[in-house]
This record gives sequence, structure tokens and C-alpha cells, in this order.
Amino acid sequence: MTDQNPRVQLLLTGNEIMSGDTVDSNSAMIAQRLAALAIGVYRKVTVGDDVPLLQQELTQMTHNADLVIVNGGLGPTVDDLTAEVLAAVAGVPTVEHPQAVAHLQHWCGKRNLALNAANMKQAMLPEGCEVVDNPVGSAVGFALTVNGCRVICTPGVPSELAPMMDLIVAQLAAAQDAPVERDILRLQTFGLGESSAQQMIADHISDWPAEVDLGFRAGAPQMEIKLMVDRAADLPARQWCREQLETLFGDHIIGEGGCQLAERVLALLRQRGQTLTTAESCTGGLIASMLTRIAGSSDGFHAGFVTYANEIKHAVLGVPNEVLASEGAVSEAVVRSMALGALERSGADYAIAVSGIAGPGGGSEDKPVGTVWLAWGSREDIRTRCLCWPVERTLFQTMIAAAGLDMIRRTLLGIDDEPRYFAQRGAGKGR
Amino acid sequence: MTDQNPRVQLLLTGNEIMSGDTVDSNSAMIAQRLAALAIGVYRKVTVGDDVPLLQQELTQMTHNADLVIVNGGLGPTVDDLTAEVLAAVAGVPTVEHPQAVAHLQHWCGKRNLALNAANMKQAMLPEGCEVVDNPVGSAVGFALTVNGCRVICTPGVPSELAPMMDLIVAQLAAAQDAPVERDILRLQTFGLGESSAQQMIADHISDWPAEVDLGFRAGAPQMEIKLMVDRAADLPARQWCREQLETLFGDHIIGEGGCQLAERVLALLRQRGQTLTTAESCTGGLIASMLTRIAGSSDGFHAGFVTYANEIKHAVLGVPNEVLASEGAVSEAVVRSMALGALERSGADYAIAVSGIAGPGGGSEDKPVGTVWLAWGSREDIRTRCLCWPVERTLFQTMIAAAGLDMIRRTLLGIDDEPRYFAQRGAGKGR
Repeated sequence: MTDQNPRVQLLLTGNEIMSGDTVDSNSAMIAQRLAALAIGVYRKVTVGDDVPLLQQELTQMTHNADLVIVNGGLGPTVDDLTAEVLAAVAGVPTVEHPQAVAHLQHWCGKRNLALNAANMKQAMLPEGCEVVDNPVGSAVGFALTVNGCRVICTPGVPSELAPMMDLIVAQLAAAQDAPVERDILRLQTFGLGESSAQQMIADHISDWPAEVDLGFRAGAPQMEIKLMVDRAADLPARQWCREQLETLFGDHIIGEGGCQLAERVLALLRQRGQTLTTAESCTGGLIASMLTRIAGSSDGFHAGFVTYANEIKHAVLGVPNEVLASEGAVSEAVVRSMALGALERSGADYAIAVSGIAGPGGGSEDKPVGTVWLAWGSREDIRTRCLCWPVERTLFQTMIAAAGLDMIRRTLLGIDDEPRYFAQRGAGKGR
Repeated sequence: MTDQNPRVQLLLTGNEIMSGDTVDSNSAMIAQRLAALAIGVYRKVTVGDDVPLLQQELTQMTHNADLVIVNGGLGPTVDDLTAEVLAAVAGVPTVEHPQAVAHLQHWCGKRNLALNAANMKQAMLPEGCEVVDNPVGSAVGFALTVNGCRVICTPGVPSELAPMMDLIVAQLAAAQDAPVERDILRLQTFGLGESSAQQMIADHISDWPAEVDLGFRAGAPQMEIKLMVDRAADLPARQWCREQLETLFGDHIIGEGGCQLAERVLALLRQRGQTLTTAESCTGGLIASMLTRIAGSSDGFHAGFVTYANEIKHAVLGVPNEVLASEGAVSEAVVRSMALGALERSGADYAIAVSGIAGPGGGSEDKPVGTVWLAWGSREDIRTRCLCWPVERTLFQTMIAAAGLDMIRRTLLGIDDEPRYFAQRGAGKGR
């Protein structure tokens, strides 16, 4: 590669992508992997499995880019056209490639399969190309320089693409004159919106250093803040930015990398040798499920209760029938009693209890859809709060389950400040 | 439109799509909606928010397509360039469009917001364009014919795109000379793989009619089979195909449309006025969560128990300590006892109980990761089965939770035949 970063285009092929039957996530994966080298993709084109169309696109791309990554069409069937297309664009025949044959023999041998004609098609590659190893599947990748543009062809199966991208990224990195190792710090937050976070940064951090790229990825329930630098020399500036964000967003930052709320809560519990239990009505087992999705969750989570009906809140958790009758299932007294009942029955140190109206039915003027009471804490100190989060049912369940986990995280960390979403979504204050 | 279907291209814009931070699912949605009119998309191009690039792509597209749908770039910020780009391609200025202003006034009025300058940018549209209503958001869509090609610009927010596509599809349908109403029948299945389903059809249905398109969409936990026809006259042929598939796959078909297992189980329970309870160890609340995600689940699901630790299986569900000690938590005796305990404590008519090793840790030679005991049924008739499904933790939880729901579905329907996955994944037979 030259001093400058290469101009990169992607060519994606597949009838299933054109029809919309498959959502393409490969191009996002490729872009993210190249971003680690500070290499951006500026254009991508998707067409079906059609030789003239593919040939036209690829020819044009080789004249306008330094690097083209082609994805898909490497398989053994008649729809897999990539080798044929690249050969035509380069004006060379396809030939049996010894390294690809060896790969196929090895691949079939390990699986006790006979090497058949369909497989052998995968060894017919453009003359003069270099093979890119496929550590997982039968189809090797291949690369050829055409019209001064490097074309690298990769498999469409995501689990095969990922390890091949490791090899491609390593090669690209080795070819960089001034090695760029983009370093991305990801901070996971809960309870911050993307636009309000952006506004807060603009309002409070006027001297943001230009060498630190700031990015956001909004998700449900978490939002990720990315801080990116391209040179090790910029790491101190990034550290400064991180400290500014910690001051600004403080306890809304859950952790680094891909850290999930449930993971963070379980790690905090593990440090102390303590456990958590759940008493869920409107979230219906989602909090328990978020916890048990994490490997090793059995250290900190032993028992959860899904008490959807009133008589179950009474029979299983001991919520008094009088309280249910007088206060209603969505009330402070009921979530408090649910939390205490779950603590008693499970022997856990902490509990989350939730009762609310997920909708679309079940709302009233007094307690509209989206109203929810949360209780959290230990036997000695149960806190409660009413929120109103009127969104679609499953998003409501996701956000409320996360809010419950967040309150336990705050409790375990001794954070007394209220999260921002209490003010935004607050409908009533508990004790 | 002419006799022939239009040649359609998509132009997608957004830096967040180019960087891979966002996976584009809008183009799949657009393609699927057009497929209902038997209109295919043959090419799509994605570029970042960059005027010269967008202008170049769009100009070229107008010369090569009859219809171009542009997605993204309609918002109020400086990155939103679509109106400016289309105006430049058409060689017209952008002007304040009265219908767009009225839409913005109405939209802001309903929300008690002042109409600010940023919003007003969304009313500056290419001169002469037609407005496409946005029933949800502030940004209207707009359409203009350039170089004989119809260009329709749509919002990037998926929840705004979907209702706008309803309007666009209706307009396109009205313009078709020979109205094609592609009719897609979706059958939801559980326990069938895509390749084995394809093989079974090839082996057993030799005279498949050419006018009925067959498609598959593999997912976890369900797989969808699609049967598509383009003319009402082909509906009898499709009905014949459906009957063949019902004979072939029988009780592996859960239902039509988007029907989910939990939905089907709840509907069957509702018909009978009966209820289900869950006793989950390795699935950790996921079955309860799948049920309560469905609106109205409270009719059929009142109580669930997440009993992750042995002492909780004993304390909460009454599983005898001797049985836990002698048989181990992952055993037929324990899941049977869990099911009975959950039935007794909840008063439900049916129960699902699950205990297994989700991994990655916790396996042994005798009971490797992926081993799971399932129990299901009513007080009078509890069935059990051991399966071995050694896949990644969350996929294991998803498939096992679905298998539990599937066994209750089979019980409620009086299906005695064993599902295919019992033979494939079976590790031991219960009573």
C-alpha cells in the first residue's frame, strides 16, 4: 500500500440478499474489521448471482478503487460465480489451483468425505491468483490484482468470513507504510440517549481533541460510546477524553468492551460471594433470562420467580391478598412485598421485583400502559420507584428488565445518585 | 408502468451503514415488500453521506432503471442530503413545499413542539416533486421522475419506512397493467433443518408445480417455508403443495404467517381455558420470557419458577434432596419432580420442566455440555426425555426452550408421534 489509505469498495453477491430473504451483515463485519486499520469503505454494490452484472460491476470497481473485497459466490453450486467472474474481468482462464485442491483434500479427509465433482469446482480459480486460506470451510478465498486494483474474494458464510478476515486484515496491516492500529475503546452505558449524550458533550467539553474520534451506537437497552485513535501517541488524549466522559456521565457507564448489565451485576456479586433473586410480573422472566444467558451465572443467581397472576403473587411470594385488593398489583406495596417474599424464599442477598402494565391492553387512566413499579435491594434496605415508559411491549420489557439490573448494579457499587431516567421517566417516588 | 415489471435499483445512504456500525435491514424490507408485487430489485448501491458520490450514483441509476428507491438522508441535520442530491440530479432548485410544511406543522402541533429551523429543512424539497406521506415521523418522503426514471426518497428510520412502503406498494400496485398480487403463504416449522426439508421434498414430491415458488428461511428456533404464486389462478396448485407438505412434515408445522411457538401454545391453552407453568434450570427463565413476550399471555401463563441451584429446586419446588444427591440435577427423576412441584404450587394444568448443562463449563464424560432432561405434561401424565444439543450456550437455551414449548403444543394437540429431533438429538428415552 502507498502512504495513503487505499480506496476500498465492496461487491456483494447473492440472490437471497437481493430478495431480502437474508439481511446482509457481512459487509458491516468487513467494514468494522477494516476500520481497525483506519481503512474506510466508501462504496458497496450488491447484485444477484448473474455473470454479466457481476462482471460489469467488478470491472468498473477495479478502475475506481485500490482494493475490492468481493463477498459470496464461492460455494460448490452452479449459482457460485465469483471465480468465473474475476477470471473474465482479468482476462485469464480458470485453472485447477494445486493449493486449493490440497485444501479440499485435507478438508474432505478430516470429515471422511469423498472429494466429489461439485467440491472440485471450488479449486477452479483464476489463473495467477493467490489463495487465501479458509480455516473453517471447504471454499478457499483468492486474490488477484486487476487494473492495478487488488481484488480479494471471500466466502458468504459469516462463520467462514470472520476467520478469513483475520488473515486479510493481518496482510493489509503488514503492507501499511506507517502502521496504523486503530484503537477503539468502547464504553457501555445505560439510561442515556444518543442525542442527549451528544448534546451534553457539546455543552460541557469544549476542547475535545481532534485526534480522538467519538462515535455512538444506540441499542436497546444499552448505548455504546466509542473513542477511537489511530496512533499510540494519541492514547493520552483519549485517556483525557475518557476521564471527561466519566465526570459527565459518571455512574451511567456500566463498563468497557461488550460488557452487558447482567454480566456486570454478576461480576459484582461474585466479588462479594453474594446472590440475587428476581420476582417478575410484567417482565415475565426476562431479567432471569438476561442473567442466565451469561456463562457462570449460577454463582450469583440461584432462583427467580415469575408471578404473573395475583393469586401466584400471593401463593408463591406471600404478597397479602388484602394488599393486592386494596393497592392493585401495580403498586409500591406489592413490589415491596414481592421483593421480600423472593428474598425469604430464595435466601438471596438482593432482589429485584417488577410489576407493571406492558400493554397493549390492561391500562387505565390512573395507571396507563407503560406504568411500572420497581423494587430492589436487600432485606434491610428495599428501595422502590414508579416509572412510566410507554413503548411497544417487548421494548418496554427490555428497558424495564435492564433498569432493574441497573438499580442492583448501583446498589452494589454504593451509588446514591439517581439515574437520569428516573427524572425523565419518573412517575412517582418510592422510599 | 409498462407491461413489463420495472427495473428497480436501491440507493442507500448513511455513514453509519458504511462504517458497519449499523447493519442495513431496510433494503431487505423494501425488497420483500416489492416482491409482493412480483417486482424484483436487481442492484443496490450504498454510499456514505457525501453529495458528489450520491449525485454520481443517482444520475447513473436514473439512466439504467425505471424505478429507484432512495433510503436515508431525510432528517433535519446537515448530514441529511437526499433532497439536495435529487434536486441536483434533476437540475431543479429545492423549494419550500407547502404540503411538507403543513405536515411538519401538524406533527409539531401534536407534540407541543415549536417548529424550528432544523425541522423546516425537511420541507425544502426538489421543485416539482410529489410528497409521500410519513404517517409516523416528521420527514415526508418525495418522488420525482428524472430521465424517465421514477425516484422515490424514503426515510432511514425503519419504523417510518415500513408505513411509507405501504403507501408506495399500493401506488405501484395500482399502476400495474396486469395486476400481479404475489401471494406468499408462510408455514412456520420447528425441528426441521433447511437442508433436510429440501431433501425430503426432492425425495417425496417429484411433481412439484413450476408455478409455485418454494423458499426457506432458516432461523432459531423456527424455520419458515414459503410458498409463492403470482396469480390467483395458481392458488389451487399452491393448496396442493401445502397438502403435500402437511403430509410430509405433518406435526412439525406450527402454524401460518409469523406464528411463534409460544403464541400457538397460548392460543391452544386459551381455547381450553387452561394454563401452563414452567420450572426452568438451564433455560433460566427463557421459556417464561418467550410466553410473556406475547400480548395477552396472562390468560394462559400465571406462574414460572427459575430454579437454578439445587437447594432452590428443593426449597421452591419440593424436589427431594435424596433424589438430587443420588441422581444429580440433570436427571429424569429431578425434572419429573420439578414439573410436579410447579404444577402443585401454581395450580396450572400443564408444566414444562428443564434441567441441563448449557455450558461452556459444567459438563462431564457422563453428562457432556448440551445434555438436557425435559419433562412436560399434566399431573396425570408427565412425559420425559433426554436430549443432547451441544451448541453455543444461548443457542442451546433458545432451542431447548422451544423444544419444551413444542412438546406442550404436541400434548395439547394430542400428537403422539415423536418429533424428528428426538431421533436426531435423542440421548435417552423417558417414559
